[in-house]
Amino acid sequence: MSTPVTSDASAATPGPAGGPEGITTGPIEGSVKHHLDVDGMRVPVRRIQLTTGEHHDVYDTSGPYTDDTAVIDLEAGLPKTRDGWSRPEPVALDGVGHTAATQLAWAREGIITPEMRFIAAREGFAPEFVRGEIAAGRAVIPANHRHPESEPMIIGKRFATKINANIGNSAVTSSIAEEVEKMVWATRWGADTIMDLSTGKDIHATREWIMRNSPVPVGTVPIYQALEKVKGDPTALTWELYRDTVIEQCEQGVDYMTVHAGVLLRYVPLTAKRVTGIVSRGGSIMAAWCLAHHRESFLYTHFEELCEILAKYDVTFSLGDGLRPGSIADANDEAQFAELRTLGELTTIAKSHGVQVMIEGPGHVPMHKIVENVRLVEELCEEAPFYTLGPLATDIAPAYDHITSAIGAAIIAQAGTAMLCYVTPKEHLGLPDRDDVKVGVITYKISAHAADLAKGHPRAQERDDALSKARFEFRWTDQFNLSLDPDTAREFHDETLPAEPAKTAHFCSMCGPKFCSMRISADVREFAQRNGLETQEDIDRMIADGMAAKSEEFADRGKHVYLPVVDG
Amino acid sequence: MSTPVTSDASAATPGPAGGPEGITTGPIEGSVKHHLDVDGMRVPVRRIQLTTGEHHDVYDTSGPYTDDTAVIDLEAGLPKTRDGWSRPEPVALDGVGHTAATQLAWAREGIITPEMRFIAAREGFAPEFVRGEIAAGRAVIPANHRHPESEPMIIGKRFATKINANIGNSAVTSSIAEEVEKMVWATRWGADTIMDLSTGKDIHATREWIMRNSPVPVGTVPIYQALEKVKGDPTALTWELYRDTVIEQCEQGVDYMTVHAGVLLRYVPLTAKRVTGIVSRGGSIMAAWCLAHHRESFLYTHFEELCEILAKYDVTFSLGDGLRPGSIADANDEAQFAELRTLGELTTIAKSHGVQVMIEGPGHVPMHKIVENVRLVEELCEEAPFYTLGPLATDIAPAYDHITSAIGAAIIAQAGTAMLCYVTPKEHLGLPDRDDVKVGVITYKISAHAADLAKGHPRAQERDDALSKARFEFRWTDQFNLSLDPDTAREFHDETLPAEPAKTAHFCSMCGPKFCSMRISADVREFAQRNGLETQEDIDRMIADGMAAKSEEFADRGKHVYLPVVDG
Repeated sequence: MSTPVTSDASAATPGPAGGPEGITTGPIEGSVKHHLDVDGMRVPVRRIQLTTGEHHDVYDTSGPYTDDTAVIDLEAGLPKTRDGWSRPEPVALDGVGHTAATQLAWAREGIITPEMRFIAAREGFAPEFVRGEIAAGRAVIPANHRHPESEPMIIGKRFATKINANIGNSAVTSSIAEEVEKMVWATRWGADTIMDLSTGKDIHATREWIMRNSPVPVGTVPIYQALEKVKGDPTALTWELYRDTVIEQCEQGVDYMTVHAGVLLRYVPLTAKRVTGIVSRGGSIMAAWCLAHHRESFLYTHFEELCEILAKYDVTFSLGDGLRPGSIADANDEAQFAELRTLGELTTIAKSHGVQVMIEGPGHVPMHKIVENVRLVEELCEEAPFYTLGPLATDIAPAYDHITSAIGAAIIAQAGTAMLCYVTPKEHLGLPDRDDVKVGVITYKISAHAADLAKGHPRAQERDDALSKARFEFRWTDQFNLSLDPDTAREFHDETLPAEPAKTAHFCSMCGPKFCSMRISADVREFAQRNGLETQEDIDRMIADGMAAKSEEFADRGKHVYLPVVDG
Repeated sequence: MSTPVTSDASAATPGPAGGPEGITTGPIEGSVKHHLDVDGMRVPVRRIQLTTGEHHDVYDTSGPYTDDTAVIDLEAGLPKTRDGWSRPEPVALDGVGHTAATQLAWAREGIITPEMRFIAAREGFAPEFVRGEIAAGRAVIPANHRHPESEPMIIGKRFATKINANIGNSAVTSSIAEEVEKMVWATRWGADTIMDLSTGKDIHATREWIMRNSPVPVGTVPIYQALEKVKGDPTALTWELYRDTVIEQCEQGVDYMTVHAGVLLRYVPLTAKRVTGIVSRGGSIMAAWCLAHHRESFLYTHFEELCEILAKYDVTFSLGDGLRPGSIADANDEAQFAELRTLGELTTIAKSHGVQVMIEGPGHVPMHKIVENVRLVEELCEEAPFYTLGPLATDIAPAYDHITSAIGAAIIAQAGTAMLCYVTPKEHLGLPDRDDVKVGVITYKISAHAADLAKGHPRAQERDDALSKARFEFRWTDQFNLSLDPDTAREFHDETLPAEPAKTAHFCSMCGPKFCSMRISADVREFAQRNGLETQEDIDRMIADGMAAKSEEFADRGKHVYLPVVDG
């Protein structure tokens, strides 16, 4: 989906741990890597140290790169941790003629896998709850057996909303550090999965580097590599070539694959009257193939064979929306929903083969048409997790499409979308650089978190409250460190008030030292406490009694409120 | 509301028209100022010239500064155009002992004023519809008789969603050009109104400069200036001092005023247990006064006298939410809603005096609690226009609060909020500079426009469709010029593909010349047209008939799709 990044890895910040050159290592300012011990598994959290002596733990996607004690060796790859975990036997499936060694098959058998236990601890749910969501197909764990380096994570609407960042190889030059750094950089700021959308030469080697060094699930769109093998001519694609490409990628450890199997011959002409036709690369490749051969898509006709392959590795389907709208005008049209109905059929087939499934979604949708997309996926696709690109809530702001889409993303996630594919400021215009990737990831963490608050995720509001409390108490450093991007928050503050004492000052640059509403609030609080004002009745009594003495006391204190007060 | 800007005006771009030094003049790239003639009034539009020879007109807030034919003289101020329009006689009001010369009073009498006709043409509605919304109190026209330089605009949920930008004087130095430029810069990018939140010395002179040169309504918070007059000690404020400040500002031409008359003594202790207490400056000033004197707020006890003053000039009340939540934890609490109920009472009083009213709203609200705010204002405040700050949908992203709040702003506007007060990336951290103001304004134009699309504003989608059509047809220049920020869109494109031919190329940097889904879509469209495929039946017939010849034809064409195609 969307645009791959080709950022210049030479901008990487070598971390304090002295990781490999070109790789950003070391913890995010103000935090340290911490691990929970869960049945011998090490579940990572980012521990934010507060100036009060307390700490605040947050979900951590960054892997060993932010661990000061980890040794990073790109050639060797990350430790193959999951190989040491016990893996249940494959499950025999009725009627499909093969077994499935998948989280879905095990969950249905009532088996709680190590991955489920890991995730339960990571998200703060009971293991049995995790198993139940997987068994129902409402959540997926993209974890190819051949990607033992990954830290298991879950995608489902009852869990924290996840985000994906796209990366891709550089056209010009590439080194292992350069390719790995893109993944490291995106996951440092919170990408829960990455998609490798590399094209061109060395696509296999690039993916190998990423797989062996990625702590998060990696997704791909195999048709891109297949197209490279036929020198970019979609009409030359065949099922056999595609199948072999899928097996190659399964063997490497790819965790989920976008398959545009719902683009059927008869849907293609439905796009003819659209304002923006077909905007999905995979969708247009398959549309071109169907029309050129006047045959049904081989992805559709061979879908059960695909299922058989994916079931073996536990690769998750991400059923692609090849006919997604590319503009507000085309949202929720017949082409889009016709394909979605087909994705529903394919979901049922995949699950009968024990394969985990998620469903991809738009794109460009005005706000009032967003929720219908989620309801239809729930209805047509057995509540399979929804994975959307934005959507952009308007088309009129190229250069700000991270924002136009953050609006749509927050709304669609609130309605039940489980994972959001990020959009960078360069969408529709060019290739994102390092800063664009960071802005895209942080923006999508905002949408995901806003949705988690709205959905009542049990842990979400803790961080808002911790940050707001720090803000109210003028703990500037804690406010920075609790934020999604401590570096930028600190930088913005220091532009106006650079001096170190300002970080402990009981005022800020907005109102200055002479007047501060936060300070008055603190005085109000103290006043209420001292006078035992708990309820409206207490307050009414205070007013009825009159309280000249008390108001005098406050007035005396008030004289002092407007002087600058600097701690320590 | 929010933070004033103190940007350095020395960064201003002198426009091609050669305006005064330090003032940004000349049209936005790709467009010209155009005027509609409406009964002798000149209604401005920004006319975007397309490469197809067509044009696309958009709403224009920037006044004469973007008009190449206008002569700007800051000392003289803008032409006092509205002084030349016929103004109806003041309307005698039953029971309140005075007359009202306000849009509300006239609308209730069935009178369509020049301002209403101007606005009707500007927004694309019938004048009678505008009058009806004003008469019902569902919309306001903030237009002080003493601000004849302004181009009338309307704030109401049936009209395009408006945005406000805050400006304020610099603490260090100020010149007329420096102060005016902040307003010019914000309105250039789309601010519908500005609020002058200046503090410190020269507050009167600064406001005079802004008023005389502002083509948009100007709002203020008079308590800020009153506080300056008592050297920053809120306990020293008096009704008489406040009243004289209000009259001084009415005489200068301020179009709307934030009055925190709903902060009552008995509500103040309700904030004591909040996570972030009172975060509104005006609210905390009045809270401090009430507690210190143990008396009810003079803004509340003297509210009818205030109405009498505002009715004379047609200044609009913006009833301030002094107890708005400052964090997710405090959203929709008793303190907030208690004040809102009082604002409802005050709305009824103000309207009985013929004074126009809007209601200010939060602040910080999680997504699932946003709509309730709009419904309560409709219910308690007679559907008076709602004017909100954001709200921020999460607290965890300082440095990105333009985005956290753009999410909330889009949702609250979709639900019926009429005007959005912008938030810049520096919110909570520091003072916004010139770039921050632009980013804040563009971000809020996105939220407002996304809401207009969702509400079905009759003109909103035209711009999305025009831009998407340009995108699909590879008209890069039109795509840039139709966007909210043509300069940045062009800059981002040119970073990756700087050459001039790339702007007419039938590909872009995302997929490169070798493969383009947009190009395939164009081919699909041509294919469907040539084969008369209109309905699903046509398509089914085509499939049933077989069409080897047709598919061969497409395959032949397909061979050419992947070559770079560059126009002219």
